[in-house]
Amino acid sequence: MSSGERSHSLGSIVERFGGELIGDKNVSVTQVAPLELAQPWHLSFLSQAKYRNQLETTRAGAVILGPEARDLTSLPRIVCTDPYAYFAKVSSFFNPVKIPPPGLHSSAVVASSARIPASASVGAHACIGENAVIGEGTVVSPGCFVGDGVKIGDACFLHPRVVIYHQCIIGDRVILQSGVVIGADGFGIAMDAGRWIKIPQIGRVLIGNDVEIGANTTVDRGAMGDTVIEDGVKLDNLIQVGHNVRIGAHTAIAGCVGIAGSTKIGRYCRIGGAAMISGHLEIADNVTISGATGVGKTITKAGIYTSAYPAEPHHEWLKNAVHLRHLHELAKKIRGLEKQSRKPKRKTK
Amino acid sequence: MSSGERSHSLGSIVERFGGELIGDKNVSVTQVAPLELAQPWHLSFLSQAKYRNQLETTRAGAVILGPEARDLTSLPRIVCTDPYAYFAKVSSFFNPVKIPPPGLHSSAVVASSARIPASASVGAHACIGENAVIGEGTVVSPGCFVGDGVKIGDACFLHPRVVIYHQCIIGDRVILQSGVVIGADGFGIAMDAGRWIKIPQIGRVLIGNDVEIGANTTVDRGAMGDTVIEDGVKLDNLIQVGHNVRIGAHTAIAGCVGIAGSTKIGRYCRIGGAAMISGHLEIADNVTISGATGVGKTITKAGIYTSAYPAEPHHEWLKNAVHLRHLHELAKKIRGLEKQSRKPKRKTK
Amino acid sequence: MSSGERSHSLGSIVERFGGELIGDKNVSVTQVAPLELAQPWHLSFLSQAKYRNQLETTRAGAVILGPEARDLTSLPRIVCTDPYAYFAKVSSFFNPVKIPPPGLHSSAVVASSARIPASASVGAHACIGENAVIGEGTVVSPGCFVGDGVKIGDACFLHPRVVIYHQCIIGDRVILQSGVVIGADGFGIAMDAGRWIKIPQIGRVLIGNDVEIGANTTVDRGAMGDTVIEDGVKLDNLIQVGHNVRIGAHTAIAGCVGIAGSTKIGRYCRIGGAAMISGHLEIADNVTISGATGVGKTITKAGIYTSAYPAEPHHEWLKNAVHLRHLHELAKKIRGLEKQSRKPKRKTK
Repeated sequence: MSSGERSHSLGSIVERFGGELIGDKNVSVTQVAPLELAQPWHLSFLSQAKYRNQLETTRAGAVILGPEARDLTSLPRIVCTDPYAYFAKVSSFFNPVKIPPPGLHSSAVVASSARIPASASVGAHACIGENAVIGEGTVVSPGCFVGDGVKIGDACFLHPRVVIYHQCIIGDRVILQSGVVIGADGFGIAMDAGRWIKIPQIGRVLIGNDVEIGANTTVDRGAMGDTVIEDGVKLDNLIQVGHNVRIGAHTAIAGCVGIAGSTKIGRYCRIGGAAMISGHLEIADNVTISGATGVGKTITKAGIYTSAYPAEPHHEWLKNAVHLRHLHELAKKIRGLEKQSRKPKRKTK
Repeated sequence: MSSGERSHSLGSIVERFGGELIGDKNVSVTQVAPLELAQPWHLSFLSQAKYRNQLETTRAGAVILGPEARDLTSLPRIVCTDPYAYFAKVSSFFNPVKIPPPGLHSSAVVASSARIPASASVGAHACIGENAVIGEGTVVSPGCFVGDGVKIGDACFLHPRVVIYHQCIIGDRVILQSGVVIGADGFGIAMDAGRWIKIPQIGRVLIGNDVEIGANTTVDRGAMGDTVIEDGVKLDNLIQVGHNVRIGAHTAIAGCVGIAGSTKIGRYCRIGGAAMISGHLEIADNVTISGATGVGKTITKAGIYTSAYPAEPHHEWLKNAVHLRHLHELAKKIRGLEKQSRKPKRKTK
Repeated sequence: MSSGERSHSLGSIVERFGGELIGDKNVSVTQVAPLELAQPWHLSFLSQAKYRNQLETTRAGAVILGPEARDLTSLPRIVCTDPYAYFAKVSSFFNPVKIPPPGLHSSAVVASSARIPASASVGAHACIGENAVIGEGTVVSPGCFVGDGVKIGDACFLHPRVVIYHQCIIGDRVILQSGVVIGADGFGIAMDAGRWIKIPQIGRVLIGNDVEIGANTTVDRGAMGDTVIEDGVKLDNLIQVGHNVRIGAHTAIAGCVGIAGSTKIGRYCRIGGAAMISGHLEIADNVTISGATGVGKTITKAGIYTSAYPAEPHHEWLKNAVHLRHLHELAKKIRGLEKQSRKPKRKTK
């Protein structure tokens, strides 16, 4: 765990971020930490009731908590309505992103027609294509490839070895982790006389503002129209986003999810890890998909959707799984038994 | 959406690709587009009956359609037996692949023993190993790594940051999207006295002609024999192909699929996204595996195979899933009830 | 299949690795091969009873087998207790890893504060950050990125295009295949007034000794504490390891697995391909998770756990799957029938 270098008094934190301070405003902290790891120089937080017992044993110097927990500790504390969001803001303040110095590394290969402001940083062995535009303060780390005609907004951070194919458009404050591939060809093929013909993928990828995309995630360019990732979307690692998908603003998607072509996902959705979403579907706003759930039909109503077969000891699974293939017969037998059980009644009338 | 630059008359298209032209042969188009996005300078297509209503409202300048739909519109139209394949050919004609100029970039690091024809293009920061052979007109984009002894055929296109390990063989007209890794070590380990020992992976990857492999997909080298991808195979993004797998010609596999070691997949199979195929299996020709389906046994007959638990509202899933673990008992109870329901009958005889 | 260059007599092999030699000690072999591919210059092995019939037809020059199979062939043979581990050792001896010559390639970009011993190899277009430390004999292949403050132990092998973010710690004899990303930011976000705020990921990744990680696998850095991969862990390709996960020593995980944040996996576990493990769980030592199994709860006992819905012909699946959504009703009907079937009995008393 790295430790923040500067010391901050609780008083100065409350002044900056609000909340009610209970205890000594001169207590100072240098870093955030979870309750069970915190030391006296740490500011910790309680965001879920199940961690309350850790409040009794924590060595933290101070704690952020909600009004319902204000009297559960005698530690110096900041009481606020949303301790987790408060913690996130304080942590961002304590741990500012390290930006490499601006300028082009001598080993970078930059097309003469590319527009790169003096405030941007282009790292070693990066390539920037013809007519590409890089925004103010944006970081293109070592080994990144930015294709012809790509536009990247201001204050973006491309980590090492990101690839952005030609013509894709990236908004402001977008973070792309290493290995991300934006705008590769979508999976468009047509069978003709026993051979697949490739369908040129002539659309783009459009990424909004404040999007973050995790390591080795891939977002394919549109086949004809564009693939669109709206503002504030957060994608974890190793996600596949097919061509012409649209992901609505502020939707968060955990790792290993696959989204097949042309599916439209709403705003403020939350999609659990390894969920698999078929193509040409629509998913409404505010839908939560549980982890490892397969979605094969359009979902028109907000709510939580799930389809996982829960893990069980293998010898029990062996006994149960065989009946999955005969549910139809089981259901038929039950109908038969129900009919039979009704018949005698009639006879007795 | 990018727009083709040249204008093509319907007459010249039919002359080149066949089909029956109904309407003015001098109507000209510059690009393809789907019915709902098409403008008057677009050639569109109808390949599925469900989009017929879009035919009434489309602004397309002309349409490709099948004989059954020839009278559904008054637009200029090309009637042919397979509108989707026809569209694919026209789009490829309108949108030729942009090939970078031939030659070696000065920052590329190329072994002196590598054989690279004057027609090939080797981009910035690419590495080409000892005795590697690159074919005529092949593009090795910036940041690619081509290992020792690798052979790549003619007219291939390696997008930025592809890695091909030593000794692997790639056919002609192969497309590898960014982040593809060909020939990394397979997962070969043996437990010995409480520790895993690595088993050297001394096979290769052999890739046929006209193969395309999607972004960040991995194909492991064989443990002893080779991993083989036959002609015309199409792999989408983020697929894992284990060591010694063989994928038969013209099989298409969607994103996020995993294929464990030594499995043999037949020709002309279609495997849906996120399907998971166990090791040491055989899958016959012309098998279709639905998305998110787990295949744990050999499949000897052509057909469609499925295993997904369909998503449902979470509160209903909670009620249902618990019974999955007791299917065995449910089935037993039904058998008991059936026996009982038969007994009274005998008594009444 | 590459062939070992040196010739080894069976006598010299038994002298080095033990086991009982039956047959001519002067028979010599140059490479290992599986029974069905072996030629007279190959040493093969029988590790599973199901391959016994291949013993009759193999063209191998000699065979490694267990005591129970010692009399199943007249070929020169080495009898030992664990033929697979014996084979692994012989193969490693026949096929030593090719280490590139030590030294820094002129195109590598290495911070002046980095510590790189003369025995290490740093390839073309690699980047080594400030204060990074590389161990003796370690190979950093072309295009790798090693961030500020990273420490890598001795005799490691980073294949081309590996990325290690700042401050991560790697043990000795670690192998990272191409496209691996170590230490990218974990998926830490907090919702605040309708927008996600990023939670700085200030932990590290700590990787023990003798770990191998497969192509394009990602291991996220800890949110506050560290993500830990203990000694001897083996990870296959395209695996996602979330922030603050701990994977116990000598656990082996097959491809396409996802492990969500803060989950602790025990020692000597075996996790099948495409298994999905939720966050904040604990999995005991010696647990085996079957392929494609979703684990949503803590597992406290060693054993095998499974949850896959087995694939079946699609038309049968259509009939069966519909009942999955009504298991609850089916179970209720059965309870009803059971009650009814008990009632008449009482009446007849």
